[in-house]
Amino acid sequence: MSSAILREVGLRDGLQSIARVLPTEHKLAWLRGAHAAGLREIEVGSFVPARLLPQLADTAELVAVARTLPGLVTSVLVPNLKGAERAIEVQADLMLLPLSASHAHSLANLRKTPDEVVAEIARIVDLRNSSGSRCRIEVGLSTAFGCTIQGEVKPAEVLRLVQAVLEAGADHVGLADTVGYADPLMVSRLFEQALRVAGDKLNCGHFHDTRGLGLANLMAAWNLGITRFDACLAGIGGCPHAPGASGNIATEDAAWLFASMGVSTGVDIDALLALRAQAAQWLDGETLHGTLWRAGLPKTLRAEALA
Amino acid sequence: MSSAILREVGLRDGLQSIARVLPTEHKLAWLRGAHAAGLREIEVGSFVPARLLPQLADTAELVAVARTLPGLVTSVLVPNLKGAERAIEVQADLMLLPLSASHAHSLANLRKTPDEVVAEIARIVDLRNSSGSRCRIEVGLSTAFGCTIQGEVKPAEVLRLVQAVLEAGADHVGLADTVGYADPLMVSRLFEQALRVAGDKLNCGHFHDTRGLGLANLMAAWNLGITRFDACLAGIGGCPHAPGASGNIATEDAAWLFASMGVSTGVDIDALLALRAQAAQWLDGETLHGTLWRAGLPKTLRAEALA
Repeated sequence: MSSAILREVGLRDGLQSIARVLPTEHKLAWLRGAHAAGLREIEVGSFVPARLLPQLADTAELVAVARTLPGLVTSVLVPNLKGAERAIEVQADLMLLPLSASHAHSLANLRKTPDEVVAEIARIVDLRNSSGSRCRIEVGLSTAFGCTIQGEVKPAEVLRLVQAVLEAGADHVGLADTVGYADPLMVSRLFEQALRVAGDKLNCGHFHDTRGLGLANLMAAWNLGITRFDACLAGIGGCPHAPGASGNIATEDAAWLFASMGVSTGVDIDALLALRAQAAQWLDGETLHGTLWRAGLPKTLRAEALA
Repeated sequence: MSSAILREVGLRDGLQSIARVLPTEHKLAWLRGAHAAGLREIEVGSFVPARLLPQLADTAELVAVARTLPGLVTSVLVPNLKGAERAIEVQADLMLLPLSASHAHSLANLRKTPDEVVAEIARIVDLRNSSGSRCRIEVGLSTAFGCTIQGEVKPAEVLRLVQAVLEAGADHVGLADTVGYADPLMVSRLFEQALRVAGDKLNCGHFHDTRGLGLANLMAAWNLGITRFDACLAGIGGCPHAPGASGNIATEDAAWLFASMGVSTGVDIDALLALRAQAAQWLDGETLHGTLWRAGLPKTLRAEALA
């Protein structure tokens, strides 16, 4: 029985793409529900200025509660040194630093070139090391498979940046199809090349389901030995600077995929579907995604029987 | 540049699962639109008694028009000898004979045991051969990955039936996840075993997207060399005797998957999306599926650039 890790990023990637500000009490119920359903890595928010993303202004509060949940890796997105200071201050377990492989997306998203972001990552590593913090630093290589603004993103540029952030001292790196341009062949090729550069420091895939290929892309990475994937409850998600990039992989669908294959994720899918139903009420009127919720688990077959 | 065949089965598998009877003129527009969009194999209906499936009562009319469309393989589903007589009479190019690997589903769907169906298939082969018809005979092994009624279906039983129908004289065989129970690992294992039995006579995969795994399952079969897949425009579809088995793979999503990977299907995706929009009007009020239609094709990247 092999295992996989689903990183729930709905509270960050999901909610940042939805205009409404979900009340903190609903977010905390979501966080607790996700933990109770067995998710053990949750990205609870971003340390981005509240004027840019008011939806995530209560990130510190969420971290404080997340840290009390047994066995949970509490992750926050951090766009710059200032955000890293806060992540260290609140004692997050992991900070996810986005780095756009697309020059145009990098400027739109962070107002910095990719190389300027690499330099900032080096400063964040220094800060973390000098502060004595044990917060892990992971770089998410966004727009690694293409960009809605720039179009094509060269694999060579992605690989150069993977190398650069590891040299800058990042602990881990993941590849992200931020805009839903990837297909399984692209995923196989790029992950294979990036694994040669990063080895087991490359340990996350972030796929959107914008055009239906999310789980097929996940499988392509899984087949190369990647075992950790971002996903959002109800398949929400997007990027404020990637128009039309809707829909992460739905956590519940990914959990079913793995359960069916006999791969342990620790997730109680029925509990996750119940949480999805609750989130659907909180997000009433928003477009949700995912497929499993409609049919539910197979009624005449237990996942274990399929393993 | 490799190629794949998408068999559009919406007019049969899709419409049989929808209670309303779509007027023949709309079906003909759908048929012509699918052909104009580049689809070259279309299952236009079933030769099932009209009292059982009034939605498909005009199948002969559709075959007549389909036969005038250049380069089109006209397929019909045929449940028994009587249906086969009609398929031969109207000169369909291909008859698809369903054979449930699940004993319980076979009884519910055709009121025959699987072995009785195999015997009927042998009679159909004899009829075809003695009539001088050139209609190809393909057996679709349904519920090959599990059954909503019976639960588990043993791979050994599937393989036994594959062997039996080839011995009975079927030209080709495909494996169908009629109820959406398959996952990529099951698909890899069963197709691998069945290919050892059937060789290149196994040349079709039929996957439902009931729980979101449709395209991941398709990729698992594609990775083993299977290049022909059933799909329904707008991801409609189901089985009258498989409750909750909603949603075939959406043709437009599968077409995008292949286009993105540089695999030729001959399909003009924009034309297919326009047809989907039209079908959505005809089927107003029905639950449609699929993902690509929402975002459309990538605006800043041509599929060819991804190959």
